[in-house]
Amino acid sequence: MKKPSKSELDVFFEPESVAIVGASNNPWRFGYYPLKNLLDLGFKGKIYAVNPKYETVQGMRSYRSINDIPEKVDLAVIIVPNTTVPSVVRDCAEKRVKGIVIHSSGFKEFGPEGKKLEEEILRTARAAGIRLVGPNTTGTVNPAKNFTTTFAPMEKLTRGPLSFIAQTGLFAGEMIRWIFTSHKFGIAKVFGLGNKCDVDETEALEYLAGDPETKVIAMYLESVKGREFFEKAKEVSRKKPLILLKSGRTEAGGKAASSHTGSLAVRDDIFDAACKQAGIMRVNDFDEMLDLAKALIFQPLPKGNRVAVVSVTGGGGVIAVDACARHGLRVGLSTKTRQTIQPLLPGWARVGNFLDLEPLYEKIGFETYDVALETVLSDEEVDCVLLVLVLIAPEDRTPEVLGFIKETVSEKRRKYPDKVVVVYPLGDKAIVEMAKDKLEGVGIPVYPSIERCAWVLSALARTSLGSARLSSN
Amino acid sequence: MKKPSKSELDVFFEPESVAIVGASNNPWRFGYYPLKNLLDLGFKGKIYAVNPKYETVQGMRSYRSINDIPEKVDLAVIIVPNTTVPSVVRDCAEKRVKGIVIHSSGFKEFGPEGKKLEEEILRTARAAGIRLVGPNTTGTVNPAKNFTTTFAPMEKLTRGPLSFIAQTGLFAGEMIRWIFTSHKFGIAKVFGLGNKCDVDETEALEYLAGDPETKVIAMYLESVKGREFFEKAKEVSRKKPLILLKSGRTEAGGKAASSHTGSLAVRDDIFDAACKQAGIMRVNDFDEMLDLAKALIFQPLPKGNRVAVVSVTGGGGVIAVDACARHGLRVGLSTKTRQTIQPLLPGWARVGNFLDLEPLYEKIGFETYDVALETVLSDEEVDCVLLVLVLIAPEDRTPEVLGFIKETVSEKRRKYPDKVVVVYPLGDKAIVEMAKDKLEGVGIPVYPSIERCAWVLSALARTSLGSARLSSN
Repeated sequence: MKKPSKSELDVFFEPESVAIVGASNNPWRFGYYPLKNLLDLGFKGKIYAVNPKYETVQGMRSYRSINDIPEKVDLAVIIVPNTTVPSVVRDCAEKRVKGIVIHSSGFKEFGPEGKKLEEEILRTARAAGIRLVGPNTTGTVNPAKNFTTTFAPMEKLTRGPLSFIAQTGLFAGEMIRWIFTSHKFGIAKVFGLGNKCDVDETEALEYLAGDPETKVIAMYLESVKGREFFEKAKEVSRKKPLILLKSGRTEAGGKAASSHTGSLAVRDDIFDAACKQAGIMRVNDFDEMLDLAKALIFQPLPKGNRVAVVSVTGGGGVIAVDACARHGLRVGLSTKTRQTIQPLLPGWARVGNFLDLEPLYEKIGFETYDVALETVLSDEEVDCVLLVLVLIAPEDRTPEVLGFIKETVSEKRRKYPDKVVVVYPLGDKAIVEMAKDKLEGVGIPVYPSIERCAWVLSALARTSLGSARLSSN
Repeated sequence: MKKPSKSELDVFFEPESVAIVGASNNPWRFGYYPLKNLLDLGFKGKIYAVNPKYETVQGMRSYRSINDIPEKVDLAVIIVPNTTVPSVVRDCAEKRVKGIVIHSSGFKEFGPEGKKLEEEILRTARAAGIRLVGPNTTGTVNPAKNFTTTFAPMEKLTRGPLSFIAQTGLFAGEMIRWIFTSHKFGIAKVFGLGNKCDVDETEALEYLAGDPETKVIAMYLESVKGREFFEKAKEVSRKKPLILLKSGRTEAGGKAASSHTGSLAVRDDIFDAACKQAGIMRVNDFDEMLDLAKALIFQPLPKGNRVAVVSVTGGGGVIAVDACARHGLRVGLSTKTRQTIQPLLPGWARVGNFLDLEPLYEKIGFETYDVALETVLSDEEVDCVLLVLVLIAPEDRTPEVLGFIKETVSEKRRKYPDKVVVVYPLGDKAIVEMAKDKLEGVGIPVYPSIERCAWVLSALARTSLGSARLSSN
């Protein structure tokens, strides 16, 4: 799965020159940010603005047509009304661009007339050997080259291991803004597909499989080309984890998808079985998608589904045990762990089926974290640890205590790299955010609820056990 | 359900005088904050510190015993080792206090010896006519009187309509810190029960039913006294919504609860049926509890389960429709709504089964929010609206746009007070938090995922339809 030395699709991520057709001076128009972003981000390639209505756009010369540009153009980004798109595509064919991203909507997703327009565009592009992304997409993002075609404001791009394939503009827009501002990981590529009239999910998947920066691939799709996609996914999932949010699970959702990107519904149970076969981790929601992606970026797949709950609070421990069991995880403490911990407790206390840190803390103070984590992580009967963190410390000492906990957890993770550790912190907002910041800074995923911790561990364990079965068959 | 002019349990929320037995100068000890909080919060009653090891505690005189205090003491808060508790309770009996909160653990939850201690304490208290909360609890919180017995740092208490009954210290501690720092609603009362050797969930429920400040009651319980509790709940739920997080749903969770508060497991399906009968809304997690509480505080119960999805983004709309359908809601747009919206769209666009604001926006600009919300909220076939909010605005104009949306949503909510509106905002972290702040400031609940919006609407609709059936039978 080495990156092909050269792919036709490279032009969508690292063009040497790009023209924004429909570039605008008006920040309320969709044509504004595709140009502004490239200027703001310091994209190193050549940038051209095309709009016959203006002399200049955002301080640049505005060309009447792409064919008026004196140099070659690799990629054209088109933001003009749907009925104007065919003539712009013909211009692009004449200009011999390599790729086109079409933002405009009003095609297949809006009935027969739109479908005819879309077919016309595709014919023109194919005849000229041009690859086409969209229509009805915000296109691509590639932080490594400070490049994006999106119409969402994008002041800063953070490089990282996660790539998206998405059949909605959300991922090239608001979703990555959310990630950049609230997560510790960055993005390798976003491949927005829209109506997929040419480049589709299978080709995108193949491209990202060969991209050395991409470690985890998350997909939002409203439809897939069945056999072809699943065969590719089965191949790719052996090397890189694949997460899929497929909308249209319900009849109503299917109808909604049809009006969004012209996608057709398939029976969800059949689709689900195909995902399992192909090693795809299926999720229901953006949150689940990011929860799982974060775990896969930061942690190994666990060897199995045995979880030890370690909790600073009794109530939190009970809820965590319950949540793990409901999610099909095996939860409890081994005889060895009980025997290690029992002598360290005050006389009145006894070890239950989760590790309650409070009595331990009464006896051994801050050593508690080291002892507790060492005991459960060194335990051969433990695959995952769910740590419920409540900070009972004098207010002004919280950063110090958190720093200490971070060091301890981080050291133990390095010592036991095969084990998965996830954390749920509870307290006031500032402390919760500080905990998230510190712990995710050293690769320990933090989730905002016990339920989500348990769900993530369960998803990881199911994938791990599923893959094991697949490879032994 | 008027508040009784005087309840025996008032002493736990508005004592005229309180003694902290085991008060400490050391901020790392549990005896520190119960005293410090009262001093910091400006509690108006008399405060006494009791600890034979000190001359003064936190600048106050330290009494050797509660009986050395020259004036009367209403409430004693006890934070001493378990084996010392019985003699302190005997002192309290001699002093004729009205109520005792016992923080100390090491009782029923830790086996036969602890159980014996607990029985001894209860006998002493009963003989002296003293009511007892705990042991193994952080006790109570009452913002109206700047009063709390908790050992978690509590610099500030915010009054509001939500009350908790809780069998873990979490709710009187970290949970309300989270609420005060990240939510727009405050707390009426927290009633922490611990091992419930005297005051139990039924009495606590009755007390809060009669509390005029309490509008919504959320409970975390590890066990309940079946018939008695459910009869009371059935009565109370007719007036005030009841939310219950009961741990020990699974066998493992039951074991964990037993070691936490000495609770015994019951069959979960039977328990579940009893909850439904009693009109209790059952949840799995703290998050679900707060999600639902927030909706009940801010919004009416919907008349039914018909949801209109309004979305700034096609992808978000599709996922929202799917999520609603998966959660058993009826989702779509009425013929009337379609007929109203269709003429307002650009020629190429047609109305699907959710209201996609993008094409509308292209035609009528900012009027979109007003038109869309007016159309779906005035629709007799709509009970709830799920708004997916993505802000595509020039960066610096975001607060202004958000302010405008807030005004529009708020005005429509006032105009259609029977309809439920929930919002999912997507964008960078600062914008999401700004949206939450602004919208919740005017009583529109905001959730951090589409899944949670759909879950909340479904829980509200199920309760509404369930209650309707109950009252007609």
